[in-house]
Amino acid sequence: MPYNPGMQKHIKIFDTTLRDGEQSPGCSMNIEEKIAMAKMLEKLNVDIIEAGFAISSPGDFAAIEAVAQAVKKPVVVSLSRAVEKDIDASWDALRRARHPRIHIFLATSPIHLKYKLKMTPEEVLHRAVNAVRHARSKGKNVDVEFSAEDASRSNRDFLVKIFSAVIEAGASTINVPDTNGYAMPREFGELIAYLRQNIPNIQQAAISVHNHNDLGLAVATSLAAIENGATQCEATINGIGERAGNCSLEELVMALQVRRDYYGKDRQTQINTRFIYPASRLLTSITGVQVQPNKAIVGANAFAHESGIHQDGILKKRETYEIMKAGDIGRTDSKLVMGKHSGRHALVSKLKELGYTDLTGAEIDNAYHKFKELADKKKDITEWDLEALLSDSVQQTDAAVYTLESLHIETGNKIQPSAELSVNYQDKTIQSASSGNGPVDAIFKAIDAVIHRDALGIHLLDYIVHAVTEGTDALGQVTVRVQKNRKIYTGHGANTDVLVASAEAYLNAVNKYLLRSA
Amino acid sequence: MPYNPGMQKHIKIFDTTLRDGEQSPGCSMNIEEKIAMAKMLEKLNVDIIEAGFAISSPGDFAAIEAVAQAVKKPVVVSLSRAVEKDIDASWDALRRARHPRIHIFLATSPIHLKYKLKMTPEEVLHRAVNAVRHARSKGKNVDVEFSAEDASRSNRDFLVKIFSAVIEAGASTINVPDTNGYAMPREFGELIAYLRQNIPNIQQAAISVHNHNDLGLAVATSLAAIENGATQCEATINGIGERAGNCSLEELVMALQVRRDYYGKDRQTQINTRFIYPASRLLTSITGVQVQPNKAIVGANAFAHESGIHQDGILKKRETYEIMKAGDIGRTDSKLVMGKHSGRHALVSKLKELGYTDLTGAEIDNAYHKFKELADKKKDITEWDLEALLSDSVQQTDAAVYTLESLHIETGNKIQPSAELSVNYQDKTIQSASSGNGPVDAIFKAIDAVIHRDALGIHLLDYIVHAVTEGTDALGQVTVRVQKNRKIYTGHGANTDVLVASAEAYLNAVNKYLLRSA
Repeated sequence: MPYNPGMQKHIKIFDTTLRDGEQSPGCSMNIEEKIAMAKMLEKLNVDIIEAGFAISSPGDFAAIEAVAQAVKKPVVVSLSRAVEKDIDASWDALRRARHPRIHIFLATSPIHLKYKLKMTPEEVLHRAVNAVRHARSKGKNVDVEFSAEDASRSNRDFLVKIFSAVIEAGASTINVPDTNGYAMPREFGELIAYLRQNIPNIQQAAISVHNHNDLGLAVATSLAAIENGATQCEATINGIGERAGNCSLEELVMALQVRRDYYGKDRQTQINTRFIYPASRLLTSITGVQVQPNKAIVGANAFAHESGIHQDGILKKRETYEIMKAGDIGRTDSKLVMGKHSGRHALVSKLKELGYTDLTGAEIDNAYHKFKELADKKKDITEWDLEALLSDSVQQTDAAVYTLESLHIETGNKIQPSAELSVNYQDKTIQSASSGNGPVDAIFKAIDAVIHRDALGIHLLDYIVHAVTEGTDALGQVTVRVQKNRKIYTGHGANTDVLVASAEAYLNAVNKYLLRSA
Repeated sequence: MPYNPGMQKHIKIFDTTLRDGEQSPGCSMNIEEKIAMAKMLEKLNVDIIEAGFAISSPGDFAAIEAVAQAVKKPVVVSLSRAVEKDIDASWDALRRARHPRIHIFLATSPIHLKYKLKMTPEEVLHRAVNAVRHARSKGKNVDVEFSAEDASRSNRDFLVKIFSAVIEAGASTINVPDTNGYAMPREFGELIAYLRQNIPNIQQAAISVHNHNDLGLAVATSLAAIENGATQCEATINGIGERAGNCSLEELVMALQVRRDYYGKDRQTQINTRFIYPASRLLTSITGVQVQPNKAIVGANAFAHESGIHQDGILKKRETYEIMKAGDIGRTDSKLVMGKHSGRHALVSKLKELGYTDLTGAEIDNAYHKFKELADKKKDITEWDLEALLSDSVQQTDAAVYTLESLHIETGNKIQPSAELSVNYQDKTIQSASSGNGPVDAIFKAIDAVIHRDALGIHLLDYIVHAVTEGTDALGQVTVRVQKNRKIYTGHGANTDVLVASAEAYLNAVNKYLLRSA
């Protein structure tokens, strides 16, 4: 049966990290990464996962298929323009989902009609209705959502007309996006109230919102919509997404929970908040894109109290300066967890605490090996170090084509930086050396010679370094992305020596290309 | 004459980057850095600059004095608890300000009264009135602001009582902080409306708000307050501040401007928006604390359009997916600006464009020298590279005690990382070498031996690396902070070799300590 909004007693979270989030620069993910995120989203207990835009690329199509098989409980969604071939592709990708949804969008604002679509309102209405009908014709269990793109800049009465027509045609969710982050919270709340009051058949559909953050207001406009009758909210982990991003899932969920007194028990989500922080960290580790320290809920400083007056207040009574507990979102107070004497058993139990409950034996072996290596170099191993190691080992379980054997770098301010390295390839050792502008440049040039990069035709898209923890013996984490023909392959490396991590990350990216493009 | 709120025809921006912002982990600034920020804030045309909390440390006191002399137009503020010694210290620090303001705060919420202050409401009221009177007694031109800390969790009628009493005692601004980021926008707007309607002498004072971002709503609550009669808003560049930070100045200002149709001409700020981006970049370069790519207005991706549909829309008509122009906030479309053949004149004119209009000859010489050095190593020099170089050279114009002569590093995965370096000290060359856990650790240990760190008694507080631009020949920028007795000294380094930048940054921090603690 299609989704019945009348049954709903909670605010549904429609996560679009894998679609709108993945669309932002630096956040593209490959299929394995999308599956890992989707499984984490299922633990987080989101209601709906938008897994991609099936027609947009074979990669998106395959990712939707894979996510549809990887998760059980959440509804899985594919985005579609209001054209038959998009809807057909979405349906093909979703065939194996337990709860499939086709999400059709079409712009409704005068500026989009005039300049982008070059259509009249009547044409738009007609196309929307036909698209929804076509989607519903796919089968009895097809759940259809219709989005009026740029709704916040659209004529209200045209919205009433098009939404009532698509509900009539079989859409069970109508989505009201603030596509450009233009709306002010009160104004957007009023729009939702207007639609709720004026769409005659609104009882047959749920009202959803999908808000962008261009003026820093995506969470506020979403909350204003919920106050006025919206029952589904589209959001992303860490608020990633086009431009300034989407409504941040963690901020929205925690605002409703912290202010339960204000929103009431029927306006809560069913999110398992203890996975908020692990989900944020997993996304960061996959993409290499950091959240800023002052990011609400998940930033490094979100629970830090720096001034003497605040520290004094916290000691006397935590609630003077804290409206939620770090533990509620899965952050532990103490970061210090393990040292070189910790054993395999301790590692496994710590990993379980961090939410990694379904690791294979090989993944655990790999993580344990890396943990022991790191413990020799770094006195205190923190949770963040473990997550970095783990994401590194999970993401490197592919059979490797090239593996780094040795790396030797000389650099400084009076010499030309140079790198010498040897790489194992089909049980043979290949040696290479190069100089460069800086040591990383030298390493990458030496690797280019080993892999015959010019012949492969791949090019380097991104090189991102970040320190996992602070201090001179911090674990440096490096993300490298290579691209060929619009397909992106992401490599990771983590080491106390950022140069070694760089070499590992580049080879990891190249290995993924070779294994997956074959 | 004290500030007359009746004259006001715009929303005043009270910038607290140098006080509440500086209070957040990783954002502490020394006096020179605060002066540089204050001059940028004056260009931005903020109405009021909170420069510090005079009693809290000699460093804060000195910074307030220095900022008071460095800027002409803005009001300069020192924070004070509601006690005489704080107010006396604030007044002493502000003596040379053209427009001084003493900002007194005292908590008003039941939880703060009971656990932190251990005072009754009557005692709080009495202390607040006495403090405001004491501040006003300092002279005719003393402008006094009173903040009711944790106002959003305080009893409304108690707020009415205390605010009317402090206005009667001479406060010309009353500040209503959402100290813990607890309030919802509509609720906070209603609180402001209630205060405006119920404080009998409200015509004699301006209503200010100071909102935190714990649930991602600081900008939304501030805008709701403005809709309901607040005429001053306290904000910070990049939204830095305690925990999840403060209201982000750039988001608030641009929301009012983009939605002038909604807020009207009397609810605009007088901010010169073209300096928004330069101010954001300057703060990032001083603190080393990055904004995330999806940060609204100033993030790297805030104006990036990634999906095919959005790019198509932008090509047909920019306004389909863009509600403001990047140029309006001082971002230029093209990042690519100079190469190795660009001359000194081109550099100076580019720096002027970036807002650096008051560089000394020595600063320009230093920047040009570094520019030429970089151009030899890196093909395309971007604006970000220039800003990094410039902040590096501005921040290194102190006479140096130690200068790096040579640095040679060997590292890799099969050897113990080692560093050899020579440093000039009083015209002599000192050599040192060390191994370490990773190359940065080796470099720092070698430097420790040169500077006799144990004897100096300084310790390493922070080590932060970031790539200014992406790519393997990116300019790596390193920030190092050292600490002794609660005083912090920040060093910067920028080089295509992140290891060389690390050595430079550490020596720079040590030099600052030696020159300024002497």
